[in-house]
Amino acid sequence: MIEGRKEAASRTARLDAVFAALADPTRRAIIERLSRSEARVTEVAEPFQMSLNAVSKHIRVLEASGVVERHKKGRDHILSINTRSLDEVDGWIERMRCYWEERLDAMGRLLRELKKDHKLGPKKDRKRGSR
Amino acid sequence: MIEGRKEAASRTARLDAVFAALADPTRRAIIERLSRSEARVTEVAEPFQMSLNAVSKHIRVLEASGVVERHKKGRDHILSINTRSLDEVDGWIERMRCYWEERLDAMGRLLRELKKDHKLGPKKDRKRGSR
Repeated sequence: MIEGRKEAASRTARLDAVFAALADPTRRAIIERLSRSEARVTEVAEPFQMSLNAVSKHIRVLEASGVVERHKKGRDHILSINTRSLDEVDGWIERMRCYWEERLDAMGRLLRELKKDHKLGPKKDRKRGSR
Repeated sequence: MIEGRKEAASRTARLDAVFAALADPTRRAIIERLSRSEARVTEVAEPFQMSLNAVSKHIRVLEASGVVERHKKGRDHILSINTRSLDEVDGWIERMRCYWEERLDAMGRLLRELKKDHKLGPKKDRKRGSR
């Protein structure tokens, strides 16, 4: 995909922010919770052995990274996952996988070639066969 | 998968380290380089507009996270990717995807039910197309 320098820069910044957001077990647990269903802030905070304020800080990091979104429903603040942000991260890992799978394929081909040569045996034997 | 508390704790620590390692554009570029082929430290450092020392620091972070491995070939230090470390990260994202795809499926079923009820009921506003 061809993309402008600006888009590439903002994509880079987004990847930085999402990976940093994911580098914490509490934040990953929040994502896990919200992946099952959207929830109010207090519901999200409930299972954690920490203050509501501490959980709120983690939620703000997730919101800043774009992984979590917030909307109001009456008086409640409802949190939900923005799946597209994780798609981008997933896309990056997928791209790396493509590279190394190509390498593994190439190594596999090389190995098959070597095996074939081995089957034909060393050159002096080969001369004796039909040529 | 059933796993002991110790394994879960070390898996958590590994995920923390790998996500933190990926949260930097230089480190992602190094992974991209090494995904194409293994390389010497100086080769890895070459394209970057920073000192060899600065690149070496990034490489050490990648080694500590387990994403990059180092082995010696004669005098050279050869760097390569440990694909398993990225598999683990990929697995985590995949698990989240499963959760929300289940939710999307459930919503899809609900929508189809509603449409069916709607078919049986008043006809005038029926929408077609997008799920």
